Order: sequence, then C-alpha cells, then structure tokens
Amino acid sequence: MNASSQAEPPGPDFSKNAGLVAAVAQDAASGEVLMVAWMNAEAYAETLRTGRAVYFSRSRGKLWRKGEESGHVQTVRAIYVDCDADTVLLKVEQVGAACHEGYRSCFFRQVTPAGLQVVAERLVDPAKIYKRG
Amino acid sequence: MNASSQAEPPGPDFSKNAGLVAAVAQDAASGEVLMVAWMNAEAYAETLRTGRAVYFSRSRGKLWRKGEESGHVQTVRAIYVDCDADTVLLKVEQVGAACHEGYRSCFFRQVTPAGLQVVAERLVDPAKIYKRG
Repeated sequence: MNASSQAEPPGPDFSKNAGLVAAVAQDAASGEVLMVAWMNAEAYAETLRTGRAVYFSRSRGKLWRKGEESGHVQTVRAIYVDCDADTVLLKVEQVGAACHEGYRSCFFRQVTPAGLQVVAERLVDPAKIYKRG
Repeated sequence: MNASSQAEPPGPDFSKNAGLVAAVAQDAASGEVLMVAWMNAEAYAETLRTGRAVYFSRSRGKLWRKGEESGHVQTVRAIYVDCDADTVLLKVEQVGAACHEGYRSCFFRQVTPAGLQVVAERLVDPAKIYKRG
C-alpha cells in the first residue's frame, strides 16, 4: 500500500447493501433529525447535481424526489459520509413537513413506559397535501 | 376498525427488515448526529432495560454493547420512533468518541467537489482504545 491508495475515497460506497446507503436528513439550522431514507447511486448523483434531496423508495422501487408531490422539498446544504461509507448525513433546509404524516420530523413519537406518545404538533393535514385516488 | 385498533403501537416494528430497525444516535445536548447502526428486538429490549445503547452488529452477527471495549458508552436519554416504525432515534450522552476511528461522530468527512474531506478533529487514537491481536 502506498500513500495514494490510502487517500479518502470519493464518496459513499454503494457496493455493500444492494446498492443502497442509508441517508439521515437533519435540519441544518435547528439540528432536528427529520427522517431516514435510502439512496442508490442515481439518487445520490441527482442530489449532488440539483442540490435537492432525492432518495430511492424501496417500497416503490424508484427514485423519490422529496417534495415532488407535497412541495415539501429539502435543499441540501452539506453532505457527510460515515466511517464505513454506507450512511450519509444530509444537512438540509426543509420546506414544511418532512414526514408524510404531516409532522416536521418523522420522529414525532417518543417511547414511554405507557407506549408510544406523540410529542410533536402536526403541521399539515396529509389529506390536503397528497392527491388521493 | 374501532378507536382502540388505531392506537399507537407499543414500539418499533421488527417484522420488516430481517428483524432489524435502523438506529440513529444523536448527542442529546449538542444535537450532533453521532452514528447510525442497527438494532434487533433483543438489542432494543436491553437498551430499554439498561439505559445504555446496545446495537446488533450485522458484520459480527451478535449484540454490540456500545463501548464495551472502548469505554465509549452511550447513556440513552430518550428514544423516538419514526412514522414507519422501522427507524429509531436515540438521544444519548456520549462518553468520548462514538466512532471506532476515534472521532466524536462517525460523520467526520464532508463531501466536497474535491472528494471527501475530514472536517473533525480525532479525539483519540483507535490503536490505544481497542485491543489488537
């Protein structure tokens, strides 16, 4: 091994987890963790190119341009890669609600001895932001 | 469906992803995202019972009591569950470095046009905290 072979790699490693890396979106201003989703290489490349968060929907099997339906886009201010290069952290400016349930963050329920308790205010009614039927 | 059948579930859903949920550890004081790992039901139960973060190591195929070797334990102050119940957010008090590379956070490298750049100070030398051989 020479010095150049130990240089930092160019980006996330999409070879390990069926082509996917986990992606944590964090509010760039408040530090609130908003959501966790997945990216494939194409989603990551489009995110870099456009400055808007694009994920890969495992359930739908296709790119998920965050906010394309709801308008709740994420403008990406910085991207970090973890030690194993299989997770990325996005610092974002979030328009509206990150969560499809209408909450600012997907982590709106806290574990308590009595079960899960909703600990956030719903910002928007999901029925009003997603077209039905 | 009656009202009770729509009550909040008791906790994370371990039935979806080969028995695992993703777990984001966030510094309870600073809001810094420290690491992302995995939990199975046993790791989650032990975390709840002991108040110390316990993960499931996919590479080693066994429970990973965070800090058991390094001393860099995480005391869990709160746990949140996301909308799909397949990811948890832990607010923790981190002793020392969360990252096995000796950095406070695993996200110590930022994506830049020139590739990944280390943007944090190494707190400890990994060779001094992990036994070798």
